[in-house]
Amino acid sequence: MTKIPNRIYLTEDEMPTRYYNLRADMTDKPAPLLNPATGQPVSLDDLKPIFCEALARQELDDDTPYVDIPEPIRDFYKKYRPSPLCRAYSLEKYLDTPAKIYYKFEGNNTSGSHKLNSAVAQVYYAKEEGISHLTTETGAGQWGTALAEACAHFGIDLSVYMVKCSYEQKPFRKAIMETFNSRVIPSPSETTAVGRQILADHPGTTGSLGCAIAEAVEEATSSNNSRYVLGSVLNQVVLHQSIIGLECEKAFAKIDDYPDTVIGCAGGGSNLGGLIAPFMRDKLQGKYNPDILAVEPASCPSMTRGKYAYDFCDTGEITPLAKMYTLGAGYIPAASHAGGLRFHGMSPIVSKLYDDGFLRAKSYKQTDIFEAAVLFARLETILPAPESAHAIKGAIDEALACKESGEAKTILFGLTGTGYFDMTAYAAYTNQTMTDYLPTDAELAEALDRLPVVPGQD
Amino acid sequence: MTKIPNRIYLTEDEMPTRYYNLRADMTDKPAPLLNPATGQPVSLDDLKPIFCEALARQELDDDTPYVDIPEPIRDFYKKYRPSPLCRAYSLEKYLDTPAKIYYKFEGNNTSGSHKLNSAVAQVYYAKEEGISHLTTETGAGQWGTALAEACAHFGIDLSVYMVKCSYEQKPFRKAIMETFNSRVIPSPSETTAVGRQILADHPGTTGSLGCAIAEAVEEATSSNNSRYVLGSVLNQVVLHQSIIGLECEKAFAKIDDYPDTVIGCAGGGSNLGGLIAPFMRDKLQGKYNPDILAVEPASCPSMTRGKYAYDFCDTGEITPLAKMYTLGAGYIPAASHAGGLRFHGMSPIVSKLYDDGFLRAKSYKQTDIFEAAVLFARLETILPAPESAHAIKGAIDEALACKESGEAKTILFGLTGTGYFDMTAYAAYTNQTMTDYLPTDAELAEALDRLPVVPGQD
Repeated sequence: MTKIPNRIYLTEDEMPTRYYNLRADMTDKPAPLLNPATGQPVSLDDLKPIFCEALARQELDDDTPYVDIPEPIRDFYKKYRPSPLCRAYSLEKYLDTPAKIYYKFEGNNTSGSHKLNSAVAQVYYAKEEGISHLTTETGAGQWGTALAEACAHFGIDLSVYMVKCSYEQKPFRKAIMETFNSRVIPSPSETTAVGRQILADHPGTTGSLGCAIAEAVEEATSSNNSRYVLGSVLNQVVLHQSIIGLECEKAFAKIDDYPDTVIGCAGGGSNLGGLIAPFMRDKLQGKYNPDILAVEPASCPSMTRGKYAYDFCDTGEITPLAKMYTLGAGYIPAASHAGGLRFHGMSPIVSKLYDDGFLRAKSYKQTDIFEAAVLFARLETILPAPESAHAIKGAIDEALACKESGEAKTILFGLTGTGYFDMTAYAAYTNQTMTDYLPTDAELAEALDRLPVVPGQD
Repeated sequence: MTKIPNRIYLTEDEMPTRYYNLRADMTDKPAPLLNPATGQPVSLDDLKPIFCEALARQELDDDTPYVDIPEPIRDFYKKYRPSPLCRAYSLEKYLDTPAKIYYKFEGNNTSGSHKLNSAVAQVYYAKEEGISHLTTETGAGQWGTALAEACAHFGIDLSVYMVKCSYEQKPFRKAIMETFNSRVIPSPSETTAVGRQILADHPGTTGSLGCAIAEAVEEATSSNNSRYVLGSVLNQVVLHQSIIGLECEKAFAKIDDYPDTVIGCAGGGSNLGGLIAPFMRDKLQGKYNPDILAVEPASCPSMTRGKYAYDFCDTGEITPLAKMYTLGAGYIPAASHAGGLRFHGMSPIVSKLYDDGFLRAKSYKQTDIFEAAVLFARLETILPAPESAHAIKGAIDEALACKESGEAKTILFGLTGTGYFDMTAYAAYTNQTMTDYLPTDAELAEALDRLPVVPGQD
C-alpha cells in the first residue's frame, strides 16, 4: 500500500464550491432565535438593521442544504486554502497507538486561525449590498485580525471595539489590525453613547465583551451603510465554516478513508460546527456513524455543566435570545489562556445536536491541555493555539484508548490555529506558574438562576 | 489556457531528494576560508573541533554537484514542506503590470522562516556522529527557534546564547525556544570564561552577536560530544537552502514556465543562495540567462557599498577569515527592524558570483520596504517579515519596470518568513515614527580601514 502523505492538499479544482447547511438535515431543528422584547421568533426585518440581508437570510434558513460560494469568496479562499489535512505520524509513533491521527490545520494564514473563513464571507456579502463600513468587537484579537484582513482586501472600513484590558495587554494584536487599515478602539470608549454611559457609571473600568458588543452594535446601527458582524455562535458562521469539514471529506476520499472519530474544540461552536458538518450529515442521514466529540475548557464548561435554555448571547443583554447550552450570560469565566473558548454559551445548532445525543462533550483543565500542546509542538513542529490544544488533548486520549483496545481507528481533529500570540501562556506553563480554575457548583448555579424568563421554559 | 493556481504545491513524491551545490558549477571558485593564525586555507582538521565532520566536509567541498538528502531529513521536511510557490494575482492587478509575479513562501512553519531547512540538516548530521549537545547564538531569534524545533525532534540538547538586549526585549522568542526544550542564556553570561571576562571588563553591557558567538563556540569546544552550529553565511547552509530553489524549479516546470528575474533578500546570503541555486546553475551552464537580484538594507549595504576582501565572520574575530563583500567585522549596523539582514558580510559564494557579474544588488531604506510590506499584506493576506519585504520591494519595482516597457516577464521572489514577531516595527511604521539611517561614506571607510591584514590582499 502506498504511504499516506504527511500533508494532503486538494487542488484548487477540488475545492468545495458550496457551503453545507447542517440544519437542512436535522429532523428536529434548532429552536428559533427570539426577540427579547416580544418573546416571538425574530424575523428577517428584525435582523436587517444589524446584519446585511444575505447574512440575515442565511441566519434564518433552516432548510437549504447547499449554498453556492460566490466566486470572489472562492478567489480569496485560494489565497490561503485549501488547508492541509495532516497525518500526525510522529505523534502516533510516540503514543505507540494503532490509531491513525489526522488533523486539519487552519493556522497557515496571517490571521492565525479558521476565523478568516467566515470573515471573508461576511465582508463580501456586506460589500455586495453597498455596505461601506463594518463594526465588530474582539477579545483576544483573532477575530478582529481576520476581519481586518478581509476588509482590507475588499476595501471596506472597519471599526473594532477591543476590550480595554486586551487592548492594553496585547499591543501586537492592535498593531496587526492597524496594519490592515482598521480602526481599533479600546472599549468602553467616548465614541458611543453606551460607552460614555459606562465610563460615567464605572470610571476606570477595563471593559468587557458585552460592553464592546454594545458599542459595536450602536455604531453599526447609527448609519444605513454600516452593519455589525460576529465571528462565532451564529448559524451563518457555522455555515461558512463548513468549508473546513467539506475539505476534510474530500481529502479523506482521496486517501480512501473516513474518520471514525471527529474531535473539535468548542467555544462558540463555529469551528466545531464547521469541522463536523459533512460527517454529522452522514450520521443524520444514517450513512455512517462517526463518533463526534466536542472538547471545552473545564473553566468554561457550557456543554458539560451548563443548561439547555434560552439566553442572551452577550453579557450586555442586547442580542436576540438563543436556545443553547449556557452557563448564563452573566457568568464570567475565569481568565484562562484559551480566550477564544471563554464564551458562556454554545452555537444553537451544536447545542441541539448535543441535546439530541448526536455528539459527546468533555472538558479538560488548562494545565493538561498545555501538556498536550507542548508534546504536539515538539513532535509535529507546529505550535498550537491554546484553543486548538483542547482538540489535541481529546485526540491523544482517544488514541491511547485505541492502544488499550487494539482498535486502528481513524481519528480526525481540528487544529484551528497557531499560538504565536500566546507565548505568555506557554511561558507560564514551562515556568510552572500556570494554574487551573474549576468553577464550583454554587457559582454555576448562581449565574443560571439569572437566565431570562421566556414563556414555556423552566 | 488553464489558469495558473494561486498556490502550486509539489507532491511528496516530487520533492527534491538531493541538495545542489552551486560551487560545483562555478569555474572560478569562491576563495578558501583562511585560518587567521596561519593565513593558510583551513583544513578539515581545523574545522572538526567546531563542526561535526559531515558538515565540515560539506563546508570545504567545492566539487560535488549533488548531495543526497538523508531520509530522516526528508521525513522532517515533509512535516512542513514542500512550501508553496504562490502567484501574486492581487498584487499584479493592483500594479497593473503585464509581469507575472510569483513568490516562494517559506513562512508556513512554526519557526516562521526558511531557517528550519538548514537547522534540520545540521542537527541530523550531528546526531549521526553521536553529538548529544549543540550550541549556537541568536540575535532576533529566528535561527534559535528553528534550531530548537529541530533539536526537539531529534532529541539533542541545545544551548542558545541570545544577545542580552534581545533576550530582554523579546521574551516571546525566549519562551518559544524554551517550549521546544532549549536552554536560552542571555549573553554575556557567567557560563563561559569569555562571558565572565566581558562582564568583568564591561559591567552592564547588553551584549553583541560577536560576544554570543564567542560564548557558544567556547561551550561547544569544551566537550567532545558538543558542536557549534550557525544559521547563515556558511557554504553548508547555502547547500541546505538549495531545497528552496530546487522546489521552485520543479514547480515552474509543472506550469511550463521559467523565471526571467529571481529576487532574494540578502543578509548573510543563505536564503538568497538557496533560492537562486538552480537558476544560477542554468546561467553558469549557459542554458538560460535569468536576471538575478539581491536586495539588501540601505543601513547595512555590504554588497552595494562594501569591499570584496578577507574578513572575520564575527565581531569577536575568532572565526576563520572569509573572502566576501564586507563592511568590516567592526561595523555595527544601525538598529533596524530587519534584524536578520544586520550582518556586516555576505556569503562567500554569493560574494564571488556578485564580483564576477552573475548577479545584481540594490538596497532600499526601511520606510520604503515597510510601505511595500503593508501593501503586500493587504493585497496578498500574508504579513511578511521585514527581511522578506526587501525582496517584495525589489519585485514591485521590477514589475513596475515591466509596466513601463510592456514586457510580460516572469518574476520570482523569495518570501522568507512572516512578521508575527515584528509587530513593534509595523506599529512604528503605521504610527509614522519609523526612521531611516544611511551610513555616511566616512563611517563605512572607518570600519573598512580595520580589515585584517592578509598576505596578497590590498
